Amino acid sequence: MMIKFEEALKIAEAYSIKTGSENVPFMDSPGRVLAEDIRSDINMPPFNKAAVDGFACRREDIEKELLINEVIPAGTVAKKVVGEGECAKIMTGAAVPGGADFVFMVEDAVETGNRVRYTGSSRKDNIARKAEDISIGDIVLKKGRIIRPQDIAVMATVGATEPLVSKRIRLGVISTGDELVEPGDMPGEGQIRNSNAYQLVAQSIRAGAEALYFGIAPDNEEQTFNMVAGALDNCDILLLTGGVSMGDFDFVPRVLANCGVKILFDRVAVQPGKPTTFGTRNSSLVFGLPGNPVSSFVQFELFVRPLVLRSMGSDWRPDTRKLALASAYKRKRGERLAFVPVRVDDNEMVEVLNYHGSAHINALPDATGLMMVPLGITEIGKGEKVDVRSI
Amino acid sequence: MMIKFEEALKIAEAYSIKTGSENVPFMDSPGRVLAEDIRSDINMPPFNKAAVDGFACRREDIEKELLINEVIPAGTVAKKVVGEGECAKIMTGAAVPGGADFVFMVEDAVETGNRVRYTGSSRKDNIARKAEDISIGDIVLKKGRIIRPQDIAVMATVGATEPLVSKRIRLGVISTGDELVEPGDMPGEGQIRNSNAYQLVAQSIRAGAEALYFGIAPDNEEQTFNMVAGALDNCDILLLTGGVSMGDFDFVPRVLANCGVKILFDRVAVQPGKPTTFGTRNSSLVFGLPGNPVSSFVQFELFVRPLVLRSMGSDWRPDTRKLALASAYKRKRGERLAFVPVRVDDNEMVEVLNYHGSAHINALPDATGLMMVPLGITEIGKGEKVDVRSI
Repeated sequence: MMIKFEEALKIAEAYSIKTGSENVPFMDSPGRVLAEDIRSDINMPPFNKAAVDGFACRREDIEKELLINEVIPAGTVAKKVVGEGECAKIMTGAAVPGGADFVFMVEDAVETGNRVRYTGSSRKDNIARKAEDISIGDIVLKKGRIIRPQDIAVMATVGATEPLVSKRIRLGVISTGDELVEPGDMPGEGQIRNSNAYQLVAQSIRAGAEALYFGIAPDNEEQTFNMVAGALDNCDILLLTGGVSMGDFDFVPRVLANCGVKILFDRVAVQPGKPTTFGTRNSSLVFGLPGNPVSSFVQFELFVRPLVLRSMGSDWRPDTRKLALASAYKRKRGERLAFVPVRVDDNEMVEVLNYHGSAHINALPDATGLMMVPLGITEIGKGEKVDVRSI
Repeated sequence: MMIKFEEALKIAEAYSIKTGSENVPFMDSPGRVLAEDIRSDINMPPFNKAAVDGFACRREDIEKELLINEVIPAGTVAKKVVGEGECAKIMTGAAVPGGADFVFMVEDAVETGNRVRYTGSSRKDNIARKAEDISIGDIVLKKGRIIRPQDIAVMATVGATEPLVSKRIRLGVISTGDELVEPGDMPGEGQIRNSNAYQLVAQSIRAGAEALYFGIAPDNEEQTFNMVAGALDNCDILLLTGGVSMGDFDFVPRVLANCGVKILFDRVAVQPGKPTTFGTRNSSLVFGLPGNPVSSFVQFELFVRPLVLRSMGSDWRPDTRKLALASAYKRKRGERLAFVPVRVDDNEMVEVLNYHGSAHINALPDATGLMMVPLGITEIGKGEKVDVRSI
C-alpha cells in the first residue's frame, strides 16, 4: 500500500539506533555529534585583561603626565600596584595591575623617557573584565550539536581536548542486480556500472556514519539471502539498493521477510523513489532503496540522513528555504510529492534543472537543492515561492 | 597604513600558490577540487532501456492479447526479436529487444499462462533512449568543482575511479605569545590556553588544505625568527597568530622582514581584525592574523579560505545572502567594515548575537553567519536587508 511521505516519515521517526559514546581527540571531532555538555574549567578572561597595547593607570590620572613604573608583557603578572601619578606599560592580553582601572592605547600616547602622556579623547577603559565572556562551570557547547571548526577554539580555551561524542552508526550497503559491474570494470552488453552503492557510502560518510560496503548481490535469492543475513548481523542500518520494484527478480522483499525483517512500509507517494521500503529486525533497521541513482540519493537524504543524525543525538534538520521560481514549472501528474533537482542562482531564484527522470544521474551534480512539489500540484507559476531543501 | 577591505582583498587575490595535481581513489575525493574535466566512456543509458518492469511489444499491438516469447532479466540480452502479436517480459534496466518500441507496466497487465493483456490507458512508451542522459565523450563533471557525494555516482557510472584532483595546499600555523599554554594544560596566573592555532588548523582542513602546526613561538625575537624561517621552508602559506599589534613584544613584523617577507598590507579597515598582515616570500605567502580567536576566525574566512580554494583551482565563492534584520542594530563607530556574528532563525531573520568583542569566543559556535555592516554605517533598522555570509 502506498502511503504519504509525511506518514512514512512519521513511521521512520519512531525508530532510532542505540549508539554509545566515546571520547575522541578534539582535533578529530569536527563532523561528530557532541554527546555531553562542555563546561568551562576557567573564567574568560581569567583576570581583568588589557584589550589593547597601552598604559594602565587610574582613571582620575589620565589628564596628567605619568611615571611608567613597569612593563607587563602578556603572560606575566605585574610586580607593582599602580599608584597616583603612575602607570604600567601593558601588552594586549596581560592582566591589568592592581590600582589601575583604565588603559589608554599606545597609539594615543606620547612617551618621553620613563614618562607618558595620554593624548586621546576616548573615555573607554579598554579593560575586558574577568569572566565577562565565560565563568567557571558555564556550559560553552551544548550536547547534540554537530561539531564545527568554530567550536574548536572554545574547546581549546576550556581544555576540552577529548570531548565525548556519539559513536558512529554503522551503515551497511548492498547493491542488487546481475546487470551491475563495479566502477573499475567496463560494462558488457546489457550491463551498467554500480553507482548507487558508492554514492550511498559517500552520503553515509557525510552524515557522520561509518559505511560498510558488502558488494553486489546477484539475481539469486539464496545468495542474496546469505548476503543480507550476514550484513544485518554486522551493521546498525542496512541499505539495499535495487530489487524492490515489481520484476520477477525483485525478491528483496521476500529475502527481507525470510531474514526476520518486519516491513513497516514499502511504497511511498514520493517522486522519485516510490518503492522505498523500511523495516526493522531486532535492533537493526533496513531500507530498500530504488535502483536508480537519483531516487536512491533523494531517499537517503529524506529518510536515512535524519535517522542517522537523530540516532547519534543530533538536533540536525534539513536546511529548507522558501524561494521564488525562475520560470514556470509543470508536471503531468500530481499524485506524488515530488523532489525536483534545482539550482539556486545568484539572485536566489530557483532554476529547475533539465532532468529526464530518476536515472538521469548527471542532474544531481549541478543541483544545489531539491524543490518540493506538493501532492496534487501540477503547475507552479514563475515567481511563486517554493520550498527548496539544500543538498 | 590602513587600507579598505576591498583593496586588501584585491591585493591578496593577485597571489596564489602553484599546486600540482594527483590522482586519488574516487571514494577519497569528496571535498577535493577536481583538476580535470571528467568525460564519459559510455553512453547512458547504454541501450534503449526498460524504465519499468513490464512487457516490451510493438506499439501497434498494445490493444491485443500478446504471446510472451521470453523473459529478459536486467543484465542479459534478449535472444529473440519481438514480432507481431508477441512481447517479451522485461525487467527494469534491461535492454528493450529488437522489434519492440513500447513497454507497458506489469502493474497494468493481466497475465494468463504465457499470454498477457495490457489494461492501462497510458501511451507513454516507458523506454529510456540510448544516450539520452550521457553520450560517450560528454563532459559529466567540470574541472574546478569541489567534489560532493552527489558526484560519486557520476564518477562510478563513467568509470572515473581515480579522478585527478589538485594537491592540497600546505598551511602552516604558528601561535605567538608567552601567555599561551597548550589546551591540555591548566593555565597559570596571567596565562590562557592556545585556542587560535587549533581553530585555524580545523578551518584549514575544512578548506581542503593540509595543516601543519608548528607550535607556540615565545616572546623572544630570535626564537621566533628561527621558527618562522623553518616554517616558511616547509609550507605554502604560513599563518601567524598574535604578535601583530603594537605592543613591545609584537616583533612579528620585524621577524617577517628579516625572513625576507615582503609585506603587502598590515592594517585593514575591518572589524574584527584590523592588524591583519599579508606578505610574500618567493613562492610562499604569509598571513599575520590577530591574536583574538574571533578575529582570527573571521580573517581566515575572509582572506585565507578563498586563497586556498582559488589556488587549488576551485570556483568556490562564499555563500552570501540578503536577509532582513530581526531587530535594530547600532554601533559606535563606522570607520571599519564590520563582520558581526549572527544567527539566521527559522523565519530567515537575522539575529545579532550577544558579542563582547573579538575575544568573545563563545559568540562563534552559535553563529550561522557574519553580517556585513558597511563602512560609514552605524545603524541598521529592524527589517532592513543586510548581507549575511554563511560560516
